[in-house]
Amino acid sequence: MDRFGVKILGCGSAKPTLRHLPSAQVVDFRGYLFLVDCGEGTQRSLLKWQVSQSKIGHIFLSHLHADHCLGLVGLISTLGLGQRQGEIVIHAEPDFERVFGPQFEYFCPELSMEVRFEPHTTAYSTVIFENDKLLVRTIPLRHRVPTTGFIFEEKPRPRHLIVQRAQELGIPVAYFNAIKAGADWEMPGGRVIPNAEITTAPAPPRKYAYISDTIYSEAVLSLISGVDLLYHEATYLDCDRDKAYQRGHSTALQAATIALKAGAKKLVIGHFSSRFHQPESEQMLLDEARSVFPDTVLANEGLDLEL
Amino acid sequence: MDRFGVKILGCGSAKPTLRHLPSAQVVDFRGYLFLVDCGEGTQRSLLKWQVSQSKIGHIFLSHLHADHCLGLVGLISTLGLGQRQGEIVIHAEPDFERVFGPQFEYFCPELSMEVRFEPHTTAYSTVIFENDKLLVRTIPLRHRVPTTGFIFEEKPRPRHLIVQRAQELGIPVAYFNAIKAGADWEMPGGRVIPNAEITTAPAPPRKYAYISDTIYSEAVLSLISGVDLLYHEATYLDCDRDKAYQRGHSTALQAATIALKAGAKKLVIGHFSSRFHQPESEQMLLDEARSVFPDTVLANEGLDLEL
Repeated sequence: MDRFGVKILGCGSAKPTLRHLPSAQVVDFRGYLFLVDCGEGTQRSLLKWQVSQSKIGHIFLSHLHADHCLGLVGLISTLGLGQRQGEIVIHAEPDFERVFGPQFEYFCPELSMEVRFEPHTTAYSTVIFENDKLLVRTIPLRHRVPTTGFIFEEKPRPRHLIVQRAQELGIPVAYFNAIKAGADWEMPGGRVIPNAEITTAPAPPRKYAYISDTIYSEAVLSLISGVDLLYHEATYLDCDRDKAYQRGHSTALQAATIALKAGAKKLVIGHFSSRFHQPESEQMLLDEARSVFPDTVLANEGLDLEL
Repeated sequence: MDRFGVKILGCGSAKPTLRHLPSAQVVDFRGYLFLVDCGEGTQRSLLKWQVSQSKIGHIFLSHLHADHCLGLVGLISTLGLGQRQGEIVIHAEPDFERVFGPQFEYFCPELSMEVRFEPHTTAYSTVIFENDKLLVRTIPLRHRVPTTGFIFEEKPRPRHLIVQRAQELGIPVAYFNAIKAGADWEMPGGRVIPNAEITTAPAPPRKYAYISDTIYSEAVLSLISGVDLLYHEATYLDCDRDKAYQRGHSTALQAATIALKAGAKKLVIGHFSSRFHQPESEQMLLDEARSVFPDTVLANEGLDLEL
């Protein structure tokens, strides 16, 4: 029930290769699924990796480049052919409506579920999803078109009640939630039992950040500080740093530097250029990133990462 | 140089399976490639099967259902990232511009080649491509949205000159093409040598017809009479004939009946419903079609068919 994980569905870049699919991944937070980017072929990947499509409630698009969103209409069209009910919310920059509207009207005229579009600014960070356990904010990025990453922030979990101690003190069950939320307990007669005597600290809240596509930008650091897991694009090696900058991308060294400066616990790099279509050449990206941030892994289709 | 072949890139239907990709195929006529339909994932299939993307000059879309055209924007976008030059012509029904225009504007702003849209009516058969050796006509079909199939008709090839006989008669080389085109030869003095004495008949012109998606419709017969190869959709088995009709599709038996009545030489069936996702269940479609038209084969990704 406490699952917080990421499954990579695609980690290639614009030019297709047989090694990777374009960008897409699924964030699983306690059984609720969030799709992050939706490159061509995503609906088939969901089938391949047996991801339950009925549990996808929100789709977050980082930007409107072909390799990040061209699987969306097919996915929605297919979901609407099935028994999918309820609502799907698509989060993207405001141009989405103009660019995708005519296709949704034509290809998805009669869906079994509601599809709603929630535009968000790319100028500053904003909360785009919130429930009692999770919050998702945008991370403004610097790419050739309006782009944001996303950070999934678990809310602080309730403290663990020491049940035996609570029973000894005669605390009624009705007050347990308040105590788990941090309240002290006042005994009949006025003696106050500090919360720390009745509870233990919960595991710290977990955070996952998705950063693709962007040039090296330290502006993201304050938003992703201390993340448990960071996905950062690493389209090129650092010897192509100028090319990366011109095309709005990062190098493996730059991705690792961001992870280091953000105090991330783990880094996964992806969005590999088609020139790295051999395992050996991808290893060069990994080696470069690890030279700065040792706890780095390469993204790959089907890879599961747990927070 | 005389190659006339078809390569299947996708032969599934709307609901995706891991067995098949959505509709797409490449017609290779003497090294010129024509893409017929362009389902999601087509650009990757072209890479997988090593089809030379630079030789695709025309793309024919049968209709604007998601599984027949959602790979188009990604393909064009990718072609335009490369060194592709010249022109690509997209042939589709007139709604195409309204439905795809905003995506082309957004995703394909600066392409290395020209992309031109040629709308065609779906109300009657019309010639949509012609050069000195080949002609492509639409085949109006009956589906839930405006739909056409396509027939690729080789033009009659020149007769074979009997070179030794031509030399005996002293015919100058400058007249050979006229004779291959069917002209008689007049000797000095007025004696006429009939063409049949100087030439032999060429191989008969070849024809390939693509029919997907449609209900059973004998209206196509006059257009596809005597085709060497017929691709006909066979979404269902004949026990689901009513369902097929309601959804605008054909059964394997119906596809075979069309092949038989058209005097086709060979039939390939495709556009399989997702319910036939096992080799055994597909065999049922094949058995049903062969009970009426023995020279039937199942489409499959990567299948090459020669005319």
